[in-house]
Amino acid sequence: MNVTDAQPDSAPDFENWSCPLPLRSHDRVVIGHGGGGKLSAELIEHLFLPAFGRVEGAEMHDAATLTLTGSAGGRLAFSTDSYVVRPLFFPGGCIGDLAVNGTINDVAMSGAVPIALSAGFIVEEGLELATLGTVAERMGDAARAAGVPIVTGDTKVVDAGLADGLYVNTAGVGVIPEGVDIRPSRATPGDVVIVSGPIGLHGVAVMSQREGLEFGTEIRSDSAALHGLVAAMLAACADVHVLRDPTRGGLAASLCEIAASACVGVEYDEASLPVPAEVAAACSFLGLDPMHIANEGKLVAFVAAADVDDVMAAMLSHEHGREARVVGRVVDGHPGVVVARTRLGATRVVDLPLGEQLPRIC
Amino acid sequence: MNVTDAQPDSAPDFENWSCPLPLRSHDRVVIGHGGGGKLSAELIEHLFLPAFGRVEGAEMHDAATLTLTGSAGGRLAFSTDSYVVRPLFFPGGCIGDLAVNGTINDVAMSGAVPIALSAGFIVEEGLELATLGTVAERMGDAARAAGVPIVTGDTKVVDAGLADGLYVNTAGVGVIPEGVDIRPSRATPGDVVIVSGPIGLHGVAVMSQREGLEFGTEIRSDSAALHGLVAAMLAACADVHVLRDPTRGGLAASLCEIAASACVGVEYDEASLPVPAEVAAACSFLGLDPMHIANEGKLVAFVAAADVDDVMAAMLSHEHGREARVVGRVVDGHPGVVVARTRLGATRVVDLPLGEQLPRIC
Repeated sequence: MNVTDAQPDSAPDFENWSCPLPLRSHDRVVIGHGGGGKLSAELIEHLFLPAFGRVEGAEMHDAATLTLTGSAGGRLAFSTDSYVVRPLFFPGGCIGDLAVNGTINDVAMSGAVPIALSAGFIVEEGLELATLGTVAERMGDAARAAGVPIVTGDTKVVDAGLADGLYVNTAGVGVIPEGVDIRPSRATPGDVVIVSGPIGLHGVAVMSQREGLEFGTEIRSDSAALHGLVAAMLAACADVHVLRDPTRGGLAASLCEIAASACVGVEYDEASLPVPAEVAAACSFLGLDPMHIANEGKLVAFVAAADVDDVMAAMLSHEHGREARVVGRVVDGHPGVVVARTRLGATRVVDLPLGEQLPRIC
Repeated sequence: MNVTDAQPDSAPDFENWSCPLPLRSHDRVVIGHGGGGKLSAELIEHLFLPAFGRVEGAEMHDAATLTLTGSAGGRLAFSTDSYVVRPLFFPGGCIGDLAVNGTINDVAMSGAVPIALSAGFIVEEGLELATLGTVAERMGDAARAAGVPIVTGDTKVVDAGLADGLYVNTAGVGVIPEGVDIRPSRATPGDVVIVSGPIGLHGVAVMSQREGLEFGTEIRSDSAALHGLVAAMLAACADVHVLRDPTRGGLAASLCEIAASACVGVEYDEASLPVPAEVAAACSFLGLDPMHIANEGKLVAFVAAADVDDVMAAMLSHEHGREARVVGRVVDGHPGVVVARTRLGATRVVDLPLGEQLPRIC
């Protein structure tokens, strides 16, 4: 498409903008409640936070921050994720390495150095021990590759039929270096938005495997541990403002959550999004939006404009950031709203997805 | 029964003793692999530890110990448990408070002060939101009562039929006070074994509810957070040697694991076991052994004989220890083997149970 075909800027009326969908009202859990979109956010806002209590000053983040006192000192990052991906094995990974990398990434997104993982297994009676063994080996391999040991664990077995083979939970603890303050509400007008590489690979890889779809070339999950990339970025610039790994809900959900959290406008250029040709083809074929598809080895970073060159240089020379790109910016207008600038020069509002286009992807 | 009926001491021949059961050989997961007995131990020993790698100097303990370096300092305890108890609600608790108390206890059994919990939910599509809401409220209530906040979480939803309503994972982090060194291998000949109160209540309560059995009076789970009791014990005597909460596999499994870990002999007196009459009746009726039944609000402590009076005094004046009792001792003979002294004065070897007599109790 040629950008000279551009239409006049048809910016929406942000002042009076509201979500076109009515509030959802359910009395039972639906698949979308686990999708990382609006239904998940509603569950957290209206069910979990009132029940657990809001922690003073806490932000919705990939990991919680704990300040140590007493006989210990410093700040910790602490995070957990359960994994129910189907199938257990897919091109580029399995539920085990996915769980290890995913929790390492959640911890790393607060700038922390991950130091230890836990592993909890819920196993269906009748699962082949060889399958459990392979998953455990892949977890061990991923943990060793990342230098983050699995130090504690638990196994429960449920009756045949009451789990889909195997569910895995991982939790992780990391140490936040002094001077590092990375959280969604630090997104500031003028910040530049960087994506660390091609998007959409994980979701499309799992779905292709599950549904037996083929798109010419095999699409492999991007599952990877990103704490090394984060450390390289922080070595170049300790004042990174925001980091997030765009898993469930994709990059769109991450940007929407950060915009809402910091109450700033975020804009990105569709033309600059790193969407691999095979992901674009699969999405076009299936009517999906690559911005909504889960990634498991990518991060989005918000940094001050003055720091972009340093951060980009560090990313481009790191294995997991060598295809990093600037894709957008934080703007003064439309606080809390994410806007895409299309290839035609028009703008459109990007909304948090309702659920997940591709359930049980992680 | 009158102890003057005592038989001559028929001590087993420990030198040549071996487990009468052949080694299990399975190619599929069976329910017992999640029971906290021998099958669980084999899974850890032969599958998880080879896959994850053994951490140098680490012991099999309720929680792992992390030594902080860099910008943080001190020692942390880190633990996780998944909960698949059926039914979700039972006399004295539900899956939610059980998960909170259980993980607090695992952290506290290293002497640590628990500081934060994570909560991961795997929910079956179609579960009533009100059920999830009640479980979350009970978790929040338990966390507030314990003073240990739930700071991070995750929810996944699986298709109807692929979970039994709801599974919960909790992980916990705590700070180990300076000078405290509590671990199984510190059990030493001469140590006294203390149990904090009546045993067998949790397992019998859940099973009664599940099977619709009635035993005259309602038996309620003992689910409770024990970090306050541990703190009181440590205030009286910082040199507690071993703590463990006898959950899956019961007190028998805890004693067997500690005896094996420290390579010491452990002896206890059946007559001194605090078995409530209703638990004894239920066990007698069902052919179960109270020593093998899960507890969720009890601990077993190993302390030097010189410290027993101080520790017992602290326990007896604490809400969760007021029925504490000395039940046994660590002896010079039969290293790694637990021996029960019966009411008749005879002795018998107590073995790690194979699986769990009552599956899905936690």
